[in-house]
Amino acid sequence: MLTEFGFIENLRAKYGFQKIGDDCAVLPKNAKTDTVVTTDLLVEDIDFRLDWTTPELIGQKALAVSLSDVAAMGAKPVWSMISVGVPERRWRSDFLSGFYRGWHRLAKKFDVELVGGDVSRTPDRIVVDSIVAGEVKKGRAVLRSGARPGDQIFVSGALGGAAAGLRLLEQGVRIETAASWQKRLLERQLTPTPRVADGIELASNRIPSAMIDLSDGLSSDLAHLCRESGVGARIFADRIPFHPKLKAFTRSFDERLALALDGGEDFELLYTVAPKKILGLQKQARKSSFGSLGEITANAGIIELINGDKTLILEPGGFRHF
Amino acid sequence: MLTEFGFIENLRAKYGFQKIGDDCAVLPKNAKTDTVVTTDLLVEDIDFRLDWTTPELIGQKALAVSLSDVAAMGAKPVWSMISVGVPERRWRSDFLSGFYRGWHRLAKKFDVELVGGDVSRTPDRIVVDSIVAGEVKKGRAVLRSGARPGDQIFVSGALGGAAAGLRLLEQGVRIETAASWQKRLLERQLTPTPRVADGIELASNRIPSAMIDLSDGLSSDLAHLCRESGVGARIFADRIPFHPKLKAFTRSFDERLALALDGGEDFELLYTVAPKKILGLQKQARKSSFGSLGEITANAGIIELINGDKTLILEPGGFRHF
Repeated sequence: MLTEFGFIENLRAKYGFQKIGDDCAVLPKNAKTDTVVTTDLLVEDIDFRLDWTTPELIGQKALAVSLSDVAAMGAKPVWSMISVGVPERRWRSDFLSGFYRGWHRLAKKFDVELVGGDVSRTPDRIVVDSIVAGEVKKGRAVLRSGARPGDQIFVSGALGGAAAGLRLLEQGVRIETAASWQKRLLERQLTPTPRVADGIELASNRIPSAMIDLSDGLSSDLAHLCRESGVGARIFADRIPFHPKLKAFTRSFDERLALALDGGEDFELLYTVAPKKILGLQKQARKSSFGSLGEITANAGIIELINGDKTLILEPGGFRHF
Repeated sequence: MLTEFGFIENLRAKYGFQKIGDDCAVLPKNAKTDTVVTTDLLVEDIDFRLDWTTPELIGQKALAVSLSDVAAMGAKPVWSMISVGVPERRWRSDFLSGFYRGWHRLAKKFDVELVGGDVSRTPDRIVVDSIVAGEVKKGRAVLRSGARPGDQIFVSGALGGAAAGLRLLEQGVRIETAASWQKRLLERQLTPTPRVADGIELASNRIPSAMIDLSDGLSSDLAHLCRESGVGARIFADRIPFHPKLKAFTRSFDERLALALDGGEDFELLYTVAPKKILGLQKQARKSSFGSLGEITANAGIIELINGDKTLILEPGGFRHF
């Protein structure tokens, strides 16, 4: 069966759509500025479950996932639209007022204005489409396609926490009654923090050669970046920063590794830096406390994982809808 | 129960969102140009039924409804994003290839580029969010709020056809086997034509004081325009242009009138013109062959319908989700 990534690739080839396939489309605004735009569809019982979270947190996450795409371009978010479909029983409930309260709480932090949207009825499940636009200095948007062999690979924060949080939810743990270490993991899943300030600082200092946000999972998202750049990568298992609470979740290193590689939804930034820019990265105020995970190689399409004395070929194993 | 329009009004008041509530949001692009953006959510079994239409026509209509919003601002459409959610059985079918073929057929006509989107799985029904942006000369976007007492009211084309087409579908008539008059009505429902060129010409000649597209129905959309403008209206039943095939659908004038007033989805433009601009409208290349439907009054919020020797207060009766 065709994957969703193959499907997008086919669309691009068939119709000649040049602007699709990155975290955001980059569009000219004026002489000094480009606009970036993104859209993310969230479907009840696929992307969220009402018994696992609250309307506020759904509103917040709907915005967060799109802000993360804007962050991955190095852009500053500016405006948003929300299309929301709800069944009649939800319309009669306080779902939407909670949803917009959560949306607004996060939007205020980033000075994002709601400029439009649509409201529709659905037969039974909630669906949300989150649209966010941002702005970036002309020509400075960071694409997925700029990575070159020899570039070092970095992430903006610790990985695997969101996936462990999802597992806890599946096990019946709820945020209201969770232990404190569980709460930390649940928050990674339910209220992700988009790395907007990091993205802006990286791009304005022209540090990254390529960037993507970690929504599908490190193994998938690194594969996307490599495919768009026509390169490969080599990463080291013992350099991947695991979320500090993963150890409480599982004693198994292999399980922690799987969560960090394939878990998805950490919404950290994954970016590559040319050797001559490493010093610039180290000087950056918001520099990641983590070292490089590995490097970009000329071995197009091949991602090697060095785990102790073994080298594995890493297959994209993150979340996908199809 | 709160209507969807009341809901949007509440959001605007509660959070101070100034840009929501028109057909599109108007955003500054550069010194000469404004950008307009709109989003429309279409849900299977609410907004379309797969046994009534084809994937191509769904793709085409998804774009058409958003193009109509852009037309209602007097703007030229430029780019689009599509978020689409489908259940796995549709993913395995050729639904999406047909959908994008239909989308692309209409997009080519208006030179609209697909710049982004999202693909998601849904549990059982298809959902589409159509986002379109357009451009208009700075300050020239035509809002809903500019109508003044004494302005004349016009529409860009004949009304009631889409609603009659919907009735035919409900009665079991299908486009493949329909009689020719039925086909004309079904096409109004299934492949609406957005009035993009009319919108652009009206705005560039600065003819309309206010404009909206007829998606919900004349009675509802005229009420939206009047509410935003703080005015009322008086329209004449015998001046409403009925679709020419409505007579074949029903011999009853009252039924034709109800279809034209409350039917919705005609996607014609409804606009108001100040007395001193009427001459300009008459000179316009694309001028409507229809005369004025009536005029704007100072009687805020009240829409009068003059039907023969009776005057009725017209309540918004068009389509609404809630």
